Amino acid sequence: MKIDELVELCSEIREFLIDKCSQNPGHVGSSLGVVELTVALHYVFDTPYDKLVWDVGHQAYAHKVITGRRDKFATNRKYGGISGFPKMSESEYDAFGGGHASVSISAALGMAVAAKMNGEDRNVIAVIGDGSMTGGLAFEGLNNAGYLKPNILVILNDNNIAIDKSVGAMGRYLLKISTSRSYNKLKNNIWNLLGQNYFRNILQKFFHSIKLIIFHRNNMFEALGFRYFGAFDGHDLHLLIKTFEKMKFVNGPKLLHIITQKGKGFKPAEENQIDWHAPGKFNKNTGERIIKKQDKSQPLRYQDVFGKTIIELAHNNKKIIGITPAMPTGCSLNLMMTEMPERCFDVGIAEGHAVTFSAGLATMGLLPFCNIYSSFMQRAYDNIIHDVAIQNLNVVFCLDRGGLVGEDGSTHHGVYDLAYLRCIPNMIIASPMNEVELRNMMFTAQLPNKGCFAIRYPKGGGVIPDWQLPFQEIPIAKARTIRTGVDIAILSIGHVGNNVEQAIDMLEGENISVAHYDMRFVKPIDEELLHFIGKNFKHVITVENGTIVGGFGSAVSEFFARHNYTLKHKFMGVPDRFILHGSIAELQAECGFDAKGIANAIISTKNG
Amino acid sequence: MKIDELVELCSEIREFLIDKCSQNPGHVGSSLGVVELTVALHYVFDTPYDKLVWDVGHQAYAHKVITGRRDKFATNRKYGGISGFPKMSESEYDAFGGGHASVSISAALGMAVAAKMNGEDRNVIAVIGDGSMTGGLAFEGLNNAGYLKPNILVILNDNNIAIDKSVGAMGRYLLKISTSRSYNKLKNNIWNLLGQNYFRNILQKFFHSIKLIIFHRNNMFEALGFRYFGAFDGHDLHLLIKTFEKMKFVNGPKLLHIITQKGKGFKPAEENQIDWHAPGKFNKNTGERIIKKQDKSQPLRYQDVFGKTIIELAHNNKKIIGITPAMPTGCSLNLMMTEMPERCFDVGIAEGHAVTFSAGLATMGLLPFCNIYSSFMQRAYDNIIHDVAIQNLNVVFCLDRGGLVGEDGSTHHGVYDLAYLRCIPNMIIASPMNEVELRNMMFTAQLPNKGCFAIRYPKGGGVIPDWQLPFQEIPIAKARTIRTGVDIAILSIGHVGNNVEQAIDMLEGENISVAHYDMRFVKPIDEELLHFIGKNFKHVITVENGTIVGGFGSAVSEFFARHNYTLKHKFMGVPDRFILHGSIAELQAECGFDAKGIANAIISTKNG
Repeated sequence: MKIDELVELCSEIREFLIDKCSQNPGHVGSSLGVVELTVALHYVFDTPYDKLVWDVGHQAYAHKVITGRRDKFATNRKYGGISGFPKMSESEYDAFGGGHASVSISAALGMAVAAKMNGEDRNVIAVIGDGSMTGGLAFEGLNNAGYLKPNILVILNDNNIAIDKSVGAMGRYLLKISTSRSYNKLKNNIWNLLGQNYFRNILQKFFHSIKLIIFHRNNMFEALGFRYFGAFDGHDLHLLIKTFEKMKFVNGPKLLHIITQKGKGFKPAEENQIDWHAPGKFNKNTGERIIKKQDKSQPLRYQDVFGKTIIELAHNNKKIIGITPAMPTGCSLNLMMTEMPERCFDVGIAEGHAVTFSAGLATMGLLPFCNIYSSFMQRAYDNIIHDVAIQNLNVVFCLDRGGLVGEDGSTHHGVYDLAYLRCIPNMIIASPMNEVELRNMMFTAQLPNKGCFAIRYPKGGGVIPDWQLPFQEIPIAKARTIRTGVDIAILSIGHVGNNVEQAIDMLEGENISVAHYDMRFVKPIDEELLHFIGKNFKHVITVENGTIVGGFGSAVSEFFARHNYTLKHKFMGVPDRFILHGSIAELQAECGFDAKGIANAIISTKNG
Repeated sequence: MKIDELVELCSEIREFLIDKCSQNPGHVGSSLGVVELTVALHYVFDTPYDKLVWDVGHQAYAHKVITGRRDKFATNRKYGGISGFPKMSESEYDAFGGGHASVSISAALGMAVAAKMNGEDRNVIAVIGDGSMTGGLAFEGLNNAGYLKPNILVILNDNNIAIDKSVGAMGRYLLKISTSRSYNKLKNNIWNLLGQNYFRNILQKFFHSIKLIIFHRNNMFEALGFRYFGAFDGHDLHLLIKTFEKMKFVNGPKLLHIITQKGKGFKPAEENQIDWHAPGKFNKNTGERIIKKQDKSQPLRYQDVFGKTIIELAHNNKKIIGITPAMPTGCSLNLMMTEMPERCFDVGIAEGHAVTFSAGLATMGLLPFCNIYSSFMQRAYDNIIHDVAIQNLNVVFCLDRGGLVGEDGSTHHGVYDLAYLRCIPNMIIASPMNEVELRNMMFTAQLPNKGCFAIRYPKGGGVIPDWQLPFQEIPIAKARTIRTGVDIAILSIGHVGNNVEQAIDMLEGENISVAHYDMRFVKPIDEELLHFIGKNFKHVITVENGTIVGGFGSAVSEFFARHNYTLKHKFMGVPDRFILHGSIAELQAECGFDAKGIANAIISTKNG
C-alpha cells in the first residue's frame, strides 16, 4: 500500500467504527483517536512477530479491525462475541490482554527482555495514554526499563484526558513540554540530525554531547533513561510512518510523545469527550446519542444514589471528603465535585494512592469516602490492609461495580472483593439490596468511629424509585428478614437478593416454604440469625453476585462448621473460573444465579 | 539546646543504638544513617503538632528514642515490647504506621491537605529512602502532591541502598544530579540567593526566572511540581537545621535531597551495608557479628533451599528466570544472581511491576520464578489476577515469609495469602511441609504448562538436613498421608504440619487415634481424600499458619458443606485480628497453633 492509500484506509476505518459503534455501543472516543497511530504501527512494524501492547486496550478497535476481526466486529462486547479489549486467546496480534490501566510498559519490558535473551530481533511497542501514565505501575515500568535498557518503544498517546479530564502534575508537565516552542525546536533539530546521519559516528558523538548538556536533563523520561521524541501530531500519518521507520533503528528504550484528540473525526465526540468515552448507541448522521429518557417512576442507578446521598451526608457532616481515582463521572462523585469542589479529590488513575491518601486524611479526623470500582480496588489491596485496616482508621470504601459488570468482561467483573476483603481484620463489609439500604449504609458508615467500612454495590439500576427517605442507622451485622419459611433458608447478600425474591415469586403454588434473609453484612456476619438458621433449617442456599470461593457463602459455611451445625448448603454465585463478557443478565444466567437459576435450585433442593 | 549540644546528642544516640542493637537485634544500619536528620527534624519542627511520616519506618529508632521510648527501647521488637516500626497506637509522635515501602508521600499528602482544610498551619514531612522511591506508590504521591500543591516537605534520604543495592533508572538519575558539579554549583548559587534574600520580592522574581529557564526542566521533581533542594550532606547537622529553618517558610510541595550513609558512625556497618541492614546480635567493641555457625547436621532455612534449588533447576531448564523486587539477599535469589546474573532480575521495590514483568516474560515462553514475600505480594494483587491468572500464563510465584514472621510484626505477617489467592481462578496454590517438598514443588511447577503456580513457605528453618534428593514430580492436588488414625483427622498445610506431628507425639499413651494429612495444595484441593475423610471421620481439625477467615480451613469447610458431609470442624490458625510482634514461637503460642495448642485441641476434640 502506498501512503496515500493508507490515509484513505484511515478514513474507512473511522467510518466503519462510527457505523458499528453507533449500533453496538463501545469505547468509540479513544479508538477514533488512534486510527492513524494504529495504521502506522501495523504498516511499519512486523506484527505479530513484533509485539504490540495496548495499555487498557479499549482504544484497540482499529487494531482489531485490521487484524482479522472486521467481520466479527459487530459482535464486539456481546455475549459470545469478540472482547472489547485485546485478548491473547482471541488473536495472535493481541500480544497482551488489556482492561486495567498502566500495565503495558511492564508487560512490554518483559517481552523486550525475553526477546533479547532469546536472541530475537523483535520490536516491542507499548502504547499508553497520558491518563494511564499517572499510575504508579507505569512509573515502575519506566524506571526498570531505563535501567535494563532493552529495545523498547513506549508511545505516549497524550490526549489530555482519561475517562474524565486528566489530572496530576505529570499531565501539566506533558502540556508544558509539548507546547514549549524553543524546546521543541531544539528537539526537532536534533531529531533531524539523527535521521540524516544516524550511522555517522562523528555526528552521533556530537549529538551525544548536545544531548548531555541540554537535552538529557531537560526531560523526565530522559532522566529515567529513555530517549524522548516529540511531541508530534499523532494524526499526521506521514510523520508517524517516517518517525517509526527511523526509530526502528534506535537502540535502547525510547519514548515517543504524540498528541492526539479523543473522538477524532467525529465532531460530537471531539466536542464532548467525556460523554463520548462510551456513549452508548447514537445516530451516526446527526451525532445524537440515543439515551433512554429517565422515567421518574423508574429506579435510579446505584451510582446516582451514591452521588446524591454523599452530598446530603456531607452537608450535615463536615468531615466527609469524596475521593475517586479518575472515575468521577462513572461513580457519580461528579455531582459532589460540582457542589463542593473543595471537598472532593480526583487523584488520577492511582488506586493505591487514593486509599493511602484517604488514610492520611483520616489520621487528621476527616472522613474519606473512597469510591473505587471493585475490580480496580484489587490495585489497592495492600493499602487497605497496611494503611487503613491495621491502623483501624475511619475510611469508608465504596466499591462500585461489585459483581458481574457485563460487557467489559473478565478484567472488570468485581467478583473477588467479598473474598479478598473478608480475610482482613477490622473490616466491616456491607452490601445493600436496594437504594434505601445503600443510603442507610452510607449514613451508618459516617457515624463516629466505625473504622474501615466497605460498602459494595453493583453496576446499574436499583429497585425503589422512592428511595430518598429519612436516614436510619443500621445496626452493624444485623440482617433483614425478607420472608419467613420453613423448608429452605436462602441467605443473600446485596442486590442479587432481588433475584431471590423473583425466584420465590416464580414458585408460587409450588408448595415450598422458603425463608429469605438479606444478610446486609458479610463481616461481621449476623451470628444470631445464623444460629437460628442452624437450629431450625436443614437446607440453606447462599446467593451472592461474586465468587463462591472464599466469599459470602464461604463465611456462612465457616460459621456452620465452627458451630457444628449440619445443614445441607448450596453455594450460588460466580463459579471458580473467569467469566467473559455479555449482558449482565446473560452472565448471571450463565452462572446460574438469575431468578430462573435460583428457582431451579430451590426446587432441586426441595426434591433432595 | 545549643547546636553543639545537639551534635553531642547525636553521638549519644548513636552510641545508645549501637549498644542496644548489639544485644537486641534490629535494623541498626538504616537507623544510624538518619541520626542527624532525626535530631534536626525534631529540633526545628514542632512535633507532634507537625506531622512526621517515616517511610518503611525501620529507620525510626532515633526518633523513638527521643520521643519518650528510650527506656523501653530494650524491648524493641520483643513480644509485648515496642514495635520496630512507627505505630500510631504507640506514640502521638508516630503520625503514621510503617512497615511497607513507598507509602509516606501519599499519607503525608492526606495530612497536608487535611491541615489546609482544617485551617491549621502545620508542617507535614515525609522521609523516604531512594529505594522506596522506586515504588510506584511514591510516584503516585508525588504526582498528586505536585498537582494539589499543599505545604508538604518530602525528604529524600538517598543512601543509594535499599536492603540490597538500589537498582533502577531513578537511582542512576539521583546519583547523576547529586554528583554533577556544575549542576550543584548552580543549585547552590540559587540556594544562597534564596537564603539571603528570600523575602525580597525582586530577587524572588529573578530566582523564578532563572529557575524557569535552567532549573525547572532540569529536574524530574521540579517537572512534577516540587521545588527541589539538594543534594546536601545529611550528616551535617548545622546545614540540616539551617535548611529546615528556611524551608519552613517555603510554601507548596518541596523536596529536599540529602545524601546519607547507611550504618554511619559504626565502621563495620558502613563497610558492609547489606549484612548490617539487620545484622542480628554483635559485639559492639569488635564489630563482630554473633552468628550461630551453620551446623551441617542442622536443617537449612527454606530461603536457602529455594536459592539452591532454583539454580539446579535453571541448569536443566533454560527457560527459568529469577525475579525479585529488591530482596535478593532476603529470599536467597542472590545465589542464582551470582551464578547466572543474566537470568536474574532485581527490579527494585516494585512488586506490581515484578509480577507484570514476569507475565510479559511468560508470554514469550520463558518461565519466571517471581519471589515475593507474602505480605509484599499484597501489593501485586491485581497484577496476579489481571496480568497472570486471567491469561493463565506460566508464572511461578514463590511466596516467602508465609505465615507469622515474628519480630517484624503486623505489617509483615504473611497470613492473608492463602485467602486472597484462593479466590483467583486458575491458581495452583501449594505449600511444603519440609525442604524436600519445597524442592519437589519447585520441580513440579517448572514442568510444562502448569499455569499460575504459587508456592508458599515460611521464614526460617526446615526440618530435614538431607534434603537434596533427586527431584520428583508431585501430582497436582495430591495430599500426603503422614499417619493414619480413626478418631480425628488433622489436615494441615505447609510447615506447620510439623507442629501437628509434635503435638501427636506429645499425646503418645493418651489413647487417641489421630490421622494426619499434609494437604500440600490449598487449590486445587485433594477431593478424593476429602471425600474419604467426609465418609470416615466425625472430627476434623484444620491447621494453617495463616488466617482462619477464608483460608485453607475455609476451603475444607466449603468442600464439606458442598458435599453434605457433617463433620465437626475445628479451625486452627491465625485468628481474625492483627497479631503484633514477638518471636515466631511466642506468636504461634498466642494463636494457639504451636504443638502444645494443637495437642490441647486434639484432647478437647476427643472429649467432645
